[in-house]
Order: sequence, then C-alpha cells, then structure tokens
Amino acid sequence: MNIGVFDSGFGGLTVLRALLEKLPGQDYVYLGDTARLPYGAKSQATVARYAVSSAGFLVDQGAEYLVIACNTASALALDEIRAAVPVPVLGVIETGANAAQASTKSGDVLVIATAATVESHAYAAACKQRGMRAYEKACPLLVPLVEEGWIEHPVTEEVLRIYLDELLAESARAGLRPDTLVLGCTHYPLLRAQIERKLPAGIRVIDSADATATQVAGALGVPAPTDDPQSERSFYATDSVEKFRKLGTRFLGQPIEYVQLIDLGG
Amino acid sequence: MNIGVFDSGFGGLTVLRALLEKLPGQDYVYLGDTARLPYGAKSQATVARYAVSSAGFLVDQGAEYLVIACNTASALALDEIRAAVPVPVLGVIETGANAAQASTKSGDVLVIATAATVESHAYAAACKQRGMRAYEKACPLLVPLVEEGWIEHPVTEEVLRIYLDELLAESARAGLRPDTLVLGCTHYPLLRAQIERKLPAGIRVIDSADATATQVAGALGVPAPTDDPQSERSFYATDSVEKFRKLGTRFLGQPIEYVQLIDLGG
Repeated sequence: MNIGVFDSGFGGLTVLRALLEKLPGQDYVYLGDTARLPYGAKSQATVARYAVSSAGFLVDQGAEYLVIACNTASALALDEIRAAVPVPVLGVIETGANAAQASTKSGDVLVIATAATVESHAYAAACKQRGMRAYEKACPLLVPLVEEGWIEHPVTEEVLRIYLDELLAESARAGLRPDTLVLGCTHYPLLRAQIERKLPAGIRVIDSADATATQVAGALGVPAPTDDPQSERSFYATDSVEKFRKLGTRFLGQPIEYVQLIDLGG
Repeated sequence: MNIGVFDSGFGGLTVLRALLEKLPGQDYVYLGDTARLPYGAKSQATVARYAVSSAGFLVDQGAEYLVIACNTASALALDEIRAAVPVPVLGVIETGANAAQASTKSGDVLVIATAATVESHAYAAACKQRGMRAYEKACPLLVPLVEEGWIEHPVTEEVLRIYLDELLAESARAGLRPDTLVLGCTHYPLLRAQIERKLPAGIRVIDSADATATQVAGALGVPAPTDDPQSERSFYATDSVEKFRKLGTRFLGQPIEYVQLIDLGG
C-alpha cells in the first residue's frame, strides 16, 4: 500500500515517524507544502485551495491512502479534500478526537493548537460528536520556538507555563474537569515532555501523531509490523529542499536523504 | 503621485505610516501578500516569484512608484522586481543601509532581521558597497511575538535580551566596534523602545520605515507636507481581510476602514 502523508511543512514528519514505527512495510510519499506554510494563520478558503492541490499531487504520485497530517488542513479542508480525490482520506483531527475519547473518563478534554485550528473549532465539533466537551486554546508561539530549536530552553518553559496556566484557569472557569490534553499541532510532540511536566497529575497527553498511526494500522487491517527493505519513501517539498532535509531530520528522527522540489503553482 | 507599498503582510504598514507622516498628500495603494506570508523562511526563487506577481498587481492598480517595504523581498528579489515593472522601485534594504551610513562614525553596523534576510547577506553587501562592515543576526521569534501582541511582556524582554547579548558578543568577537543597529524587519519598529533600552549607550537604532519615508520624499522632491483630503488610500490582501484590518491597525497606528481581498493565484 502506498500511503501519502501531507502537511504544510515538517510537522507532519512526526506522523510519518509514528507510521514508520507501526507500519514499516508500506510505501510512503510525503509532501510538505513549505512554500506556502504556515497554514495556521490563513483563512479557510486559502487553506482549502492549498490542501486540495497538495492532496491531488500525492494521488498523482501513486498514493492509495491519504493521511492529512496537518491539523489546520484537517480542520478547515477535510471535506474539500475528500471531494477532490478518489482515495480514502484520514485527518489528524478525527484521529486525535478518537484517541481523546478512548482516554477520557470525565468527558472533558483540552486542546492546544494553532490559531486557525482553534478558530475553526474543529476539535470542539469532533469531540461533541463523540459525547465530549473540549476547551481549545491557540498557542501561536510554540511552532516558532520549536523551529528555532529552543526545545529545552527557559523561554519555552516560560511560554508553556503561561499558555498552560491560562488554559487550565480558563477551562476551570468554563466549568470543565479535564483529564486529557490533545496536542493539536504536529510540532507539539517535540515539546511533549515539557508539557507533561507542567500539567497537574491526572491529565493525560494525547499525541495525535501516535493516535493517527494506530488508526491507520487499524483501518488497513495490517498484521504484525515487518520491515520490508523494498518499501519506498519519497519526500517532496514546495520550497528549499536543503532546509527541509535539515529541519525535517529533527522531526522524522532519522536522516532524510533526498527531497524533490515541486511547484504547485503557488 | 500614486505610491505602491508592498509587503508580505502587515509589517510594511509601519513604512506606510512613516510615508503618510512625511508625504500625506500622495495617493497610496498597499498590498499585503498575507496568503503566502511569511516570506522570511522561504527560498530566493519562491520569494522572487511571489514578489514579482505582487509588484505587477500594484502597477496594474496605478502605482507609479513602488516601495518594497518587505526586507526579505528587498533582499532576495529587488533585481527581479525592477526587471518586471516599468516604474521606479525602492527597497528597504538600500534605504536602511543609506541611513546607517549617515549615522555611523565607526563604520561598523549591526543588523537584526529574519532568517532569509540574514542568509541573503543583502545588508552586509549593501553596507560593504557604502564602505561599512555589517554584522547580521537572525531573530526569528520577534515577528511571532509582535503578532501575539506580547510587546511589553517579560517573555519578549527575555528573548530580546538573549538575541541582543548574542549579537553584541558575536560582533565583538568578529572585531567590530558598532555604533548603529538597523532594524532589518518592518515588524521590529513596534519593539524599538525595548530594543533601545537593552543596548549599550552609544549604539543608535535605525528604523528602516522612517529611513525609507525620508528617502522617498527626497527622491520625489516633494516640498513641505500638506494633508490633501482628496488623497486616496487603498488596501489589498491575499488572505483574511478581517485579520488584516484588526492586526494592520496596530501597525499603521490608525484604523483601516476597508481591505479588498485579491487572488494572486498562489
């Protein structure tokens, strides 16, 4: 099976990394729409236009199953992508919401994400559909801090403290008793340890990369993982392939040998 | 005279603000290519493609003089823009370097900017042409901090302290005796007071917005400013006009009544 993984940038490589662990024998084609990132601050119409052209490119490359590893595109454009391509499409919002449902006992869930994902209220809607209440908060400084490489850094600790304190206070005022926090952006798994340290005991962190890989494996009905030396992995980017290789290696957790530059006409 | 002002986003409104103060009687057309921002982390080819289409749009709207109020586009694409449009084009890198030349006695200049502007070494080249030495440093967290609205904020103070301490230490190690610091990104004027407080006495801050307005006034040979009630101001954006109005007002320092959404095909 050829699995296409799409993100606006490098963050989706945390999803590919989880997929490679759970489903090492499949073929993968990854597209980072780096010329037009970040999607997180853009409007629905713009994000949908970018995401549909990107999904079409992956299907043209042979993808038989699409994972939209971009929270913003999953939040704003999943219906448009499904209408535009002839293959099954899974988005990280629904996999995150499914994992939250499996985790929560109180039914109250916290979500941190980019501004556009939060403004779409896609997590709140997906949680409500599953009988949960969600409190969502935009954390726009986390992506640039991760990209600056300030992972174990006092400024990042302070920014996380501010965001998470606000989140806990605001959700308490709204009457929620949360026991689960969803990392609603694929950059955030790199800050998972710091986030877990700052949360009260009894709040469990859901990493949508892990959750997505588990659900793809379930959907494909794939048996025990076997590492197939014949499996192919292709990487495409719409901007600087050098930067993609350098930054991407940090997200994928292994070297990226070759990245092909493509032009989606943006 | 109809003056076109171009930026990837809202930052160029600090340049328009300075122009409105110095040349209130002119007509202005402003384009923020907000669907494709930020340019600061993108490659030369991509930035040039975006900037040329944006400049062409402004000329189509009647601009007879173009101000490229985007440091990244001025650094990476000024030649391409000049080749593509039939009107005079002024970029903020050259105006910043001219102002630094007028300010410096030691001939040694510091520049803070986005990653792409620094990697292009456009400020270093412009300073060298004018007989100065420049030490450039990328400060990628400052734009998101300004856009988060954390202007007077302890995290921003700490980030500035780290960046400026590194800048002073690195430039001293390189043997420079700087007396001038150029704000090489149009977002940075909003942090000017905090930056000035953290610099040693004897380092003067150059705001490229002010410097650009002064040089446009000089180039146009415009006499004493008069406020012409007939002068027209049009605003265009490639993404959410609501966000443009809201955030843009902070940069322009006055309300923006109407913003028109356009599609540059990106």
